[in-house]
Amino acid sequence: MKGISLLGATGSIGTQTLDCIRSNPDRFKLQAIAVGRNLDLTRKIIQEFQPSVVSVQCKEDQEKLRAEFSSHIKIYYGEEGLIEVATYKESQVLVNAILGSVGLLPTLKAIEAGKTIAIANKETLVTAGHIVMAKAKEKNVAILPVDSEHSAIFQCLNGESDKEIERLIITASGGSFRDKSRAELENVTVEDALNHPNWSMGAKITIDSATMMNKGLEVIEAHWLFNQPYEKIDCLLHRESTIHSMVEFKDGSIIAQLGTADMRIPIQYALTYPERIPTKSERLDLATIGKLHFEKMDFDRFRCLQFAYEAGKIGGTLPVVLNAANEVAVHAFLAGEISFLQIEDWIEKALTSHQVIANPDLQTILQVDKETREVVSRY
Amino acid sequence: MKGISLLGATGSIGTQTLDCIRSNPDRFKLQAIAVGRNLDLTRKIIQEFQPSVVSVQCKEDQEKLRAEFSSHIKIYYGEEGLIEVATYKESQVLVNAILGSVGLLPTLKAIEAGKTIAIANKETLVTAGHIVMAKAKEKNVAILPVDSEHSAIFQCLNGESDKEIERLIITASGGSFRDKSRAELENVTVEDALNHPNWSMGAKITIDSATMMNKGLEVIEAHWLFNQPYEKIDCLLHRESTIHSMVEFKDGSIIAQLGTADMRIPIQYALTYPERIPTKSERLDLATIGKLHFEKMDFDRFRCLQFAYEAGKIGGTLPVVLNAANEVAVHAFLAGEISFLQIEDWIEKALTSHQVIANPDLQTILQVDKETREVVSRY
Repeated sequence: MKGISLLGATGSIGTQTLDCIRSNPDRFKLQAIAVGRNLDLTRKIIQEFQPSVVSVQCKEDQEKLRAEFSSHIKIYYGEEGLIEVATYKESQVLVNAILGSVGLLPTLKAIEAGKTIAIANKETLVTAGHIVMAKAKEKNVAILPVDSEHSAIFQCLNGESDKEIERLIITASGGSFRDKSRAELENVTVEDALNHPNWSMGAKITIDSATMMNKGLEVIEAHWLFNQPYEKIDCLLHRESTIHSMVEFKDGSIIAQLGTADMRIPIQYALTYPERIPTKSERLDLATIGKLHFEKMDFDRFRCLQFAYEAGKIGGTLPVVLNAANEVAVHAFLAGEISFLQIEDWIEKALTSHQVIANPDLQTILQVDKETREVVSRY
Repeated sequence: MKGISLLGATGSIGTQTLDCIRSNPDRFKLQAIAVGRNLDLTRKIIQEFQPSVVSVQCKEDQEKLRAEFSSHIKIYYGEEGLIEVATYKESQVLVNAILGSVGLLPTLKAIEAGKTIAIANKETLVTAGHIVMAKAKEKNVAILPVDSEHSAIFQCLNGESDKEIERLIITASGGSFRDKSRAELENVTVEDALNHPNWSMGAKITIDSATMMNKGLEVIEAHWLFNQPYEKIDCLLHRESTIHSMVEFKDGSIIAQLGTADMRIPIQYALTYPERIPTKSERLDLATIGKLHFEKMDFDRFRCLQFAYEAGKIGGTLPVVLNAANEVAVHAFLAGEISFLQIEDWIEKALTSHQVIANPDLQTILQVDKETREVVSRY
């Protein structure tokens, strides 16, 4: 029986993780959860899974839940709560599916506590990949990807040697606006942007797909997860998202992972690795799909992807700025305060005005993250 | 340094194997070759690679070469010669790229001698898979596929557990006549049939591609190589042959191997496995290819594939009959004696009139092979 701690239990990845646990009660036990402010869903999760530890975002919600549930369930809040969940003694695996840079510290604490990390929180690797991967190596802890693209690469590397990798090929659906020219992007609406053709995801990540920043963040994550230089990480437009990603080896052979757009497959794989167990997911039927399309990635069309490569290559605190500026800009777009193309402008402005600090420690990362958010919010 | 014995050195797979050896003189040494009757090419190979053992098809050619080359090179002929090559003491690997059922006995002798087998000879597994795989298991000898489809499946299974396989998906280009209806197949010519859209191969295998018997034989080989029931082996029409084959696992995840139509990649992989080393092969560029197509396999349209599944499932001597009848029929077609669709008719007639012998030994297999050839030649 594998004990699981889950950060971000009420989110998109979180609820799908719960579905994997629900389908395999003989294998997995949900031991601890951290949630945001969705108390209704949190109550249902507590009733169904009876976790031992629950952490909510604020004190007020902690008090509410304490009044409702037995004292056998420990209820925390805030950063302390996240760390309690991440390091809970009965859990062997931490699924980090929380949004934002709050996911960073609990991940490091979980690594220190020897937990296997199933990582869906982008900020952890984008902003602090050098710290996280070094600590994971030191503690001999596995960092397993949950994202469909990184899970695909991870699966393609099964039984292979890292030394024989020629390049990683991350596929990109192109997002909601893949068929629009830059001129046409001038006046797109939030509703247009939220209408992703392939995947059903949260609002932030759907916008990130439309700007291609999502792919950019994935490139940086892949750099850390698979220890490859940026020159060996390519992106390929593949509108069906059927091939989730690929690895080309030195002999010219390419291994690809394919599947439906069901995130429960990569989530479950991270939970069962190195085993595979059955899922109820619909099966991929290539004959019915009929055609798969591939196009060269257009870096002029998708400037955020270019920003990400540049920030990744320069490194230091620049990816922190990339990520924070993007988050603020996307929220401003979602709030109707700026246009779609202004997202890029804000990020570019933040990147070019930042003085890079090399090899930042955790405190510096969190400080730069905070400052960038403040600065960009005033644009 | 890996010593290599090569059966069928002057054929299509043979010369490409030589190319792999030529490109890696620090890794591979050609120790022994068996050839047919192409003495000109054989002389060149001897001069270039200086093998210690050479076997030709007939005594007359043996005498010619003996007169020409130093006595340091042992020159044999016939079945004895094939076995000398296959079991040569300085070789660790036997590449079996000979055509026809003559490849069977030397393979078994090589397994007994503890050689790793890189198998491109279809008859070995199609007609005697039960004997070959049992002996390989007993002697703890690896049987490594050379065929692009089987190499693909083999690569997809890297690091995976056989127990977690849901199905093997063998892709099929559809051959020269993939866009023709059965009515249109009535009057196709030998020249039409030899014009394969994707792969450059020998005449026999190109016709087998057009009838889809090639895919049928591959299904039977896959059954033995990967120890899977026929119900778990599917074929998928994929005209570009870019995805060489795939494996679907129980969790719904599919791993695929992709590449150009360069056989040197799977040949080299069989020689270097589990390592991969660089090749000079052109790289696959999916963005330039643009589209990949997939269609359901049509068993009414491709009756030979149906025959192969049926013969495989019934087993015993029936696959021997399938293979022998096909070989005779294809030769008759190539000689202009029968029409393209009569190939199917001859095979069907041979299959339906055969009394199946279960679990045949080597002698029975060779006897049924001989008898079937005689019978079908009189059709």
